[in-house]
Amino acid sequence: MEPTSRDQVDDALEAARRREADQPSSAVVRFGEDKPLRLDGGAQLAPWQIAYQTYGKLDADKRNAVLICHALTGDQHVHSIHPVTSKPGWWNLMVGPGKPIDTERFFVICANVLGGCMGTTGPASLDQATGKAYGLDFPVVTIADMVRSQAALIEHLGIESLFLVIGGSMGGMQVLDWAAHWPDKVFAAMPIAAGPRHSSQNIAFHEVGRQAVMADPDWRMGRYIEAGTSPKKGLAVARMAAHITYMSELSLHQKFGRRLQDREAVTFGFDSDFQIESYLRHQGTSFVDRFDANSYLYVTRAMDYFDLAAEYDGVLAKAFAGTKTRFCVMSFTSDWLFPTSQSREVVHALNAAGASVSFSEIVTDFGHDAFLLDEPEMFAIARGFIDSAARARGLDRKAGR
Amino acid sequence: MEPTSRDQVDDALEAARRREADQPSSAVVRFGEDKPLRLDGGAQLAPWQIAYQTYGKLDADKRNAVLICHALTGDQHVHSIHPVTSKPGWWNLMVGPGKPIDTERFFVICANVLGGCMGTTGPASLDQATGKAYGLDFPVVTIADMVRSQAALIEHLGIESLFLVIGGSMGGMQVLDWAAHWPDKVFAAMPIAAGPRHSSQNIAFHEVGRQAVMADPDWRMGRYIEAGTSPKKGLAVARMAAHITYMSELSLHQKFGRRLQDREAVTFGFDSDFQIESYLRHQGTSFVDRFDANSYLYVTRAMDYFDLAAEYDGVLAKAFAGTKTRFCVMSFTSDWLFPTSQSREVVHALNAAGASVSFSEIVTDFGHDAFLLDEPEMFAIARGFIDSAARARGLDRKAGR
Repeated sequence: MEPTSRDQVDDALEAARRREADQPSSAVVRFGEDKPLRLDGGAQLAPWQIAYQTYGKLDADKRNAVLICHALTGDQHVHSIHPVTSKPGWWNLMVGPGKPIDTERFFVICANVLGGCMGTTGPASLDQATGKAYGLDFPVVTIADMVRSQAALIEHLGIESLFLVIGGSMGGMQVLDWAAHWPDKVFAAMPIAAGPRHSSQNIAFHEVGRQAVMADPDWRMGRYIEAGTSPKKGLAVARMAAHITYMSELSLHQKFGRRLQDREAVTFGFDSDFQIESYLRHQGTSFVDRFDANSYLYVTRAMDYFDLAAEYDGVLAKAFAGTKTRFCVMSFTSDWLFPTSQSREVVHALNAAGASVSFSEIVTDFGHDAFLLDEPEMFAIARGFIDSAARARGLDRKAGR
Repeated sequence: MEPTSRDQVDDALEAARRREADQPSSAVVRFGEDKPLRLDGGAQLAPWQIAYQTYGKLDADKRNAVLICHALTGDQHVHSIHPVTSKPGWWNLMVGPGKPIDTERFFVICANVLGGCMGTTGPASLDQATGKAYGLDFPVVTIADMVRSQAALIEHLGIESLFLVIGGSMGGMQVLDWAAHWPDKVFAAMPIAAGPRHSSQNIAFHEVGRQAVMADPDWRMGRYIEAGTSPKKGLAVARMAAHITYMSELSLHQKFGRRLQDREAVTFGFDSDFQIESYLRHQGTSFVDRFDANSYLYVTRAMDYFDLAAEYDGVLAKAFAGTKTRFCVMSFTSDWLFPTSQSREVVHALNAAGASVSFSEIVTDFGHDAFLLDEPEMFAIARGFIDSAARARGLDRKAGR
């Protein structure tokens, strides 16, 4: 039966989303008690699982694998219909037949991050010790933990070394962590719109989002699944605040300005008089359909904790000492969340480490979100870098077909 | 009896704050049914009142009056102890004996804005028609309405023309509105860190704040006073988000960076590991002690509605046509909430209108909040402009003493 009201749609989406947490529509690898995942926080996670999508075909010698690392609220459905929202893959512009990450040529892997809610173990997953969802009993994880879980997947797939690891924003953090901690497994790396650490301002915005979630009484100290509630309002506020940071002032101005929403004049009230208000409210309410509130806490926390240089005496170059990986670093002029200065810091460290690195700052008005959008220059640079790296790796253009 | 716990302190502060809404510690002028305040939204507000502080002495010819317009969460206690928080005046650096706005020379007035909660009529005030606080029955007001209420106060005080109208942020919006709508009453005007309209990004941040307040079940559709509740968590989240926008990325980095709060290492949890988190939480919780949640909705809305050019066919210069007011416009390099480009737009319009205008962009790392802080260049420029304007107005240096 078709859902007939907005509430029924919500309930159906929420049920679908909750199902994904343990029984994802994606492929999944389950690791038992004998294969615990060691976490930076000291805990050992077991059992645990990782959900992933693949596109294209793995070569016989398993040298054409591309790992895509997704961002904060992304997931593994990079080039496939989302099982909850039914929306197309989030990076169809970058990934697909004939696209810069050519699925006729490469074997593309994207896994849901540890702490996420789309099938890789996270706070919405069933804790077999209690028979309930983990909630806040889930251990706080880091970017390095996410990468460690991906490395276990890659090993499970029998892949010795990845041709390319690529991702934007938090995905870019993972790329940097891969390159630092697993240098022999990364032939080429493309961190986009990322940085070597989460800045004070970025931590601040995340903290606002977490406080918004936790302020919602329906959050129930993280035990909302058993309580049959959902901290939708708090999570929506968190998403609204975050969403502003993903756009530039100019793109907001160009897209919305002070234009009014379906009215001729302001109403002298608190409805969505302005298009930007209506847009933000929609961003908030649609987000809660597809994302778990506790996952939002955990994944933002992982980003906050990211500081790649910290374990190398604060010297970022040491993270890349002796690396043979070839890097292509990208930033966007109007990105104020991960401004170019942060990418430049990565580039300087790579230069200091004697690494092979190219750097491009792309002129765009789209802000941080540019990596998800139609940015021809980004695609052209990605295509050039990937083709050149493929030649260097000896990947025949036709091999993967 | 001294309050002994944090809760009792909260209760005492809240009681003090609620008292201020109708029975302020400040001077107050009450206008009866015969003197309604006409509002942009079409309503007539009556009875109504305006609470204000004055410092210094009014000259016999009443030509040395300075009106200070306060910002979103400011109030009339510009140079006096705050009756709720007991903190010193918010602009003691700018106002006082020997300061740029010299109280030995000028008669300084600052009134709580319409819609505020410190004694001028607003949503926390008693609605005499119902015997309850207005709540959302209070009409939505505009910056022009605030200025109209101040004009009524000035008239009540028998002041024909103000020597100077000055303010930062929303205060600067009021300064511009004063100059546009009451040109003959403004000899000199200093809008600081302001702009001719509220931008899409600024509306967006305000909308997040309002949604955070309204998402708090203790908000009770604005009827929290009668319900005996207080939407503290929602208002604190709103304040936290706003507070980030008042600082620059650089000042957050310099002040907090990724430094930890009273600990040696991260705790792998959701406590305030980072100083920036602890700081923001404090900003949120201390704000709710002194501010009414509904006032926050109304005053942010007034800012959103501000678009000075709109009533002049979109041509800002027309707002200042024929003006004889002399202007000193100021902005701050690191202010991303009201960036220099917005002040420059005002300056261009003033130039086009043939007005007397000087413009300074002050180099500072302190972001939007710089107007409240120790910015020697700002004080030097203010002093120079004010002294020069005072000479032009024929105010004897000793007249006010």
